[in-house]
Amino acid sequence: MKNNTFEELGDVILQAEKILLFPHVNPDGDALGSSAALCRALRKMGKSCYVLIEDKMPANLAFLDRGYFTEDQQIVGRPDLSVCIDCGDEGRFAKRKERFRSAPVTMCIDHHQTTEYYCDFNYVDSKAAACGELIYRLLRVMGAEIDKEIGEAIFTAITTDTGNFQYANTTKESHEIVASLYEAGIDTAGVSVALYENVRLEKMRIKNRVLETMSTICEGRGVIAYVTQDMLKETGALMEETEGIVQELRSIQGVEIAALIKESKSREIRVSLRAKYSADVAAIASAFGGGGHTRAAGCTLHCSLTEAFDILKEKITESLTETDD
Amino acid sequence: MKNNTFEELGDVILQAEKILLFPHVNPDGDALGSSAALCRALRKMGKSCYVLIEDKMPANLAFLDRGYFTEDQQIVGRPDLSVCIDCGDEGRFAKRKERFRSAPVTMCIDHHQTTEYYCDFNYVDSKAAACGELIYRLLRVMGAEIDKEIGEAIFTAITTDTGNFQYANTTKESHEIVASLYEAGIDTAGVSVALYENVRLEKMRIKNRVLETMSTICEGRGVIAYVTQDMLKETGALMEETEGIVQELRSIQGVEIAALIKESKSREIRVSLRAKYSADVAAIASAFGGGGHTRAAGCTLHCSLTEAFDILKEKITESLTETDD
Repeated sequence: MKNNTFEELGDVILQAEKILLFPHVNPDGDALGSSAALCRALRKMGKSCYVLIEDKMPANLAFLDRGYFTEDQQIVGRPDLSVCIDCGDEGRFAKRKERFRSAPVTMCIDHHQTTEYYCDFNYVDSKAAACGELIYRLLRVMGAEIDKEIGEAIFTAITTDTGNFQYANTTKESHEIVASLYEAGIDTAGVSVALYENVRLEKMRIKNRVLETMSTICEGRGVIAYVTQDMLKETGALMEETEGIVQELRSIQGVEIAALIKESKSREIRVSLRAKYSADVAAIASAFGGGGHTRAAGCTLHCSLTEAFDILKEKITESLTETDD
Repeated sequence: MKNNTFEELGDVILQAEKILLFPHVNPDGDALGSSAALCRALRKMGKSCYVLIEDKMPANLAFLDRGYFTEDQQIVGRPDLSVCIDCGDEGRFAKRKERFRSAPVTMCIDHHQTTEYYCDFNYVDSKAAACGELIYRLLRVMGAEIDKEIGEAIFTAITTDTGNFQYANTTKESHEIVASLYEAGIDTAGVSVALYENVRLEKMRIKNRVLETMSTICEGRGVIAYVTQDMLKETGALMEETEGIVQELRSIQGVEIAALIKESKSREIRVSLRAKYSADVAAIASAFGGGGHTRAAGCTLHCSLTEAFDILKEKITESLTETDD
């Protein structure tokens, strides 16, 4: 497996007139920021370019859309080139796969770990913190001007995928790229308000309700909270809006393991687990047929919420006691 | 007013043997990160150096202390040089002022806006996002090796003072400096867990209680919440631990003005105000004898909590109606 060069990618792009971009399903700041940046740059080169999506734009990323995003698969007729962005495989744009394949030439720009290429031209770099970094490098090689709007889209990609430059995937290059974006006059504070100050009231309310259910165990080294279907109904929130709460539980002083118990259906309980420094929550999850990473894992239990609580309490206590040894 | 050069500062430092560093009272990540970085660098140059503080180290910054910080004012006897760090005036280290002045030579390294110098040697740059950036520049000019520990202390200074690179004070140089710190092998994810995942359970609980009191006004364009002395007693939290809640209120979708009403004493109500895009909360605050910036302001009311709520509700509604016009 060998990447094409950005020069090769640039040449292929320059030869195309009608270009469709394909970010992954349930798109995030990196997928949409990268797509918006590339779309604007290609339009400035005179290309007919759109970003084809299959979901609604998340409200906090709507600012990226200046007429680039569409769900209309027929938008440019038959494209000359399809570019998938931030997608590890075709399953990540399943509903648009046929349209993707309708172009005579396909291209993949991605930063996920992969074992095989699925496009005619590929640039995959799993060391890049964000796909936006690869878009930046491509545009530089193509000699495209990075204006304020492109800069802010790339900043969005990088800041969201690095957890605001805190995650371990952040590199020297992430900061070097953002430093250079300042030359385009990016307004990072403005982007940040758009990204992070757009929280649904219902999401705020469900977080509050969930945090009220916190129980600490093992002298505060473990913490467990839960969310029920009734709580969702009462607050009007969606289950997906409980994402992030388990990290907030982990952020409590002294907590090593945090668990969020989610009542998915009757007798179907999903569990999110996080560890801070030394515990192995993948081991806990795999004991129940789940899996994940050492510090972030999950599993599904088929029992009542109360039973799930007791089972987890026992298993987390056991894990924390082992960590002591 | 003209700054000394870093070369001049470096020469003065090299001539001293016993050096005391003075971060400001109620020290934050910038004050303590900058001090720790400079202290370690000076010790590596063979200096006898300590950071003199007058408060307990915040728990989330304790990782910076590898024997540098002390409250013992006699620690090195009479210092040859006193350096105040991140302090705009002597009032910022009032309890240590005499000790500061006991050195034959004084130095100030700061990034606050100021109108006059108060030390023998001064370097004040209000364009720097963090004092840590100035420490970095000084160490570079002095030819000091930036090792992992110094790098992580400077990263702490910059990431905390820029709101993780989101605030408007962040510059191209902030990112350039952090990029170069990666060469020292800094572990930003580790620093970030230490900084942000060290939240007192009591703080989490008071936030929860306060968010429960949220009322939205003007169709969700305003939000008001409150904290009482009873709520603090019940959760065991300190009033200062309610900091940050008003920003969380502002982060709700559609909210333009957020207010947090704090029952300080009987009939003494402190109010924190935040605006998101267009409202002027300084105007609201000044109507009640307070002040601040357009987007962040505060005032004190002498009335009951309920009265304060009604007064603010009216004033915020008025301001939001004006913003419409």
